Amino acid sequence: MNAMLGLPLETILQMMKAAYEDKVPFNALLGIKIDSITPDTVVVRIDMKEDLVGNFEKKILSGGVISTVLDFTGGVIAQLQVVKEMMDSTPEELLKRLTGMGTIDMRIDFIRPGRGKYFLATGSILRLGKKVAVVRTEMSSDEGMLIAAGTGTYLAG
Amino acid sequence: MNAMLGLPLETILQMMKAAYEDKVPFNALLGIKIDSITPDTVVVRIDMKEDLVGNFEKKILSGGVISTVLDFTGGVIAQLQVVKEMMDSTPEELLKRLTGMGTIDMRIDFIRPGRGKYFLATGSILRLGKKVAVVRTEMSSDEGMLIAAGTGTYLAG
Amino acid sequence: MNAMLGLPLETILQMMKAAYEDKVPFNALLGIKIDSITPDTVVVRIDMKEDLVGNFEKKILSGGVISTVLDFTGGVIAQLQVVKEMMDSTPEELLKRLTGMGTIDMRIDFIRPGRGKYFLATGSILRLGKKVAVVRTEMSSDEGMLIAAGTGTYLAG
Amino acid sequence: MNAMLGLPLETILQMMKAAYEDKVPFNALLGIKIDSITPDTVVVRIDMKEDLVGNFEKKILSGGVISTVLDFTGGVIAQLQVVKEMMDSTPEELLKRLTGMGTIDMRIDFIRPGRGKYFLATGSILRLGKKVAVVRTEMSSDEGMLIAAGTGTYLAG
Repeated sequence: MNAMLGLPLETILQMMKAAYEDKVPFNALLGIKIDSITPDTVVVRIDMKEDLVGNFEKKILSGGVISTVLDFTGGVIAQLQVVKEMMDSTPEELLKRLTGMGTIDMRIDFIRPGRGKYFLATGSILRLGKKVAVVRTEMSSDEGMLIAAGTGTYLAG
Repeated sequence: MNAMLGLPLETILQMMKAAYEDKVPFNALLGIKIDSITPDTVVVRIDMKEDLVGNFEKKILSGGVISTVLDFTGGVIAQLQVVKEMMDSTPEELLKRLTGMGTIDMRIDFIRPGRGKYFLATGSILRLGKKVAVVRTEMSSDEGMLIAAGTGTYLAG
Repeated sequence: MNAMLGLPLETILQMMKAAYEDKVPFNALLGIKIDSITPDTVVVRIDMKEDLVGNFEKKILSGGVISTVLDFTGGVIAQLQVVKEMMDSTPEELLKRLTGMGTIDMRIDFIRPGRGKYFLATGSILRLGKKVAVVRTEMSSDEGMLIAAGTGTYLAG
Repeated sequence: MNAMLGLPLETILQMMKAAYEDKVPFNALLGIKIDSITPDTVVVRIDMKEDLVGNFEKKILSGGVISTVLDFTGGVIAQLQVVKEMMDSTPEELLKRLTGMGTIDMRIDFIRPGRGKYFLATGSILRLGKKVAVVRTEMSSDEGMLIAAGTGTYLAG
């Protein structure tokens, strides 16, 4: 389970990282980066900048940015499970499966105001089935404060 | 209940519209506009543009944009209730109350892919208490297709 | 599309009503009844009784009863869509599909205290796909007060 | 912070356990018990019995039972925080605050079919404010399988 299309899994993960950062226009607009990616999970990073402020009195991160990052983080974690399952497939089959995936629903709990220089998000699988995956996610500030938590249900493709 | 600070409610609403569009950096980045605003509800508009795409294969609106618009729409509807309640207050009291408001949690259901030239979101109050407001929201495409639905719980300030 | 197994759809619906009321032990324990059922939706009824009280100071319906009724109501509505789709199938195929269905996740908003002599719940489909159905539901008191609202995501079997 | 009304906190916790088990009719109907209770959290137990079955083909726990247990578990955890805060209050003040508490909204994720001889639920605080508390909960079977996870927002009274 560590080679696909003759490529090692590590190479596949780096290709995914490049696609997430460069080929998703909304990720690029916000500055969403993959801090680290493993076969099981991902750490997503976003740096604070003026454009991302939601409350002009309080200078805190917009809830929309938080929702975007947690939805994306959960989606990557769901896709990682599919990639591991499909190591014997052709690239066409994999791409078809991944582009068929998408968020069905999501809950976000906003815990603390989004204050910080940068924010990191990660998560873990709650349920993994043939049809849907459910993923719990969390975002913390650079000082380690929990900012928000999410639970998303994703179509498994 | 139709004047505050010597200003008619209609003037207050136009001041809110200007603040939402110009003073919230993340709204400005995305191009979120107030299509119409009344004492009871709001219609929020966002025009499709390349930067807002989430799935580069399918050229559809990012789920993060949808979450941002529905969270914002629900928040405005919660704030409208507070503004109507506080027509006898000073501007300082009102501003303090409004800036103390915020989203506690939110559910988003993604119904259809976000295809369209522009999108409109609106909503209505489910629960209005002294401590929290719960608001249901919906986003449709310019062709009237329902794209997403949300339910948010907001701190009433 | 109005006969299955040589039976008219109306007969199928009455068989479903009987099964829901008599063959689901937890429904029987609570006294959950099908008030009416059509090809598109259902009205579920539960009568107030001492056993269903959740707050002994306030004598109101337990939140657990409300969650149970809204989850069940949404599930019936999801099943109705599948039944209509499968009017040409064998009873074995239909039963297999229906028993493979189940709730993936659910949000409940508790709007008002559950006071009343009886309560009615109904709902409508938000999203209907091959893999999942999303259903919005509502429960009202006998006096027409909205008590709770729900959104559930169901595996389509 | 370990005495109220001249009573040690441990005695207060035992009084709460007795009230939850004996004074809440719906808890008694289902057989919901407090397995253990500490100043910070609770373990809730429910034994499988025929009455609690939701799917007569599969003989598994009703989703309504799961929702009831997770909502209750989260509510107790929210109440524990309030009890600790109010150790200097009179019994009347405490009772008034506790009976003013209630669930605002809740998400339940159903992870695995509810098979087991008994089930245990516990949880932890995500957000604790003056107006609301947000609690994450989980239910596992007697064999340690995760059956369901929840997130609830509670009015802090």
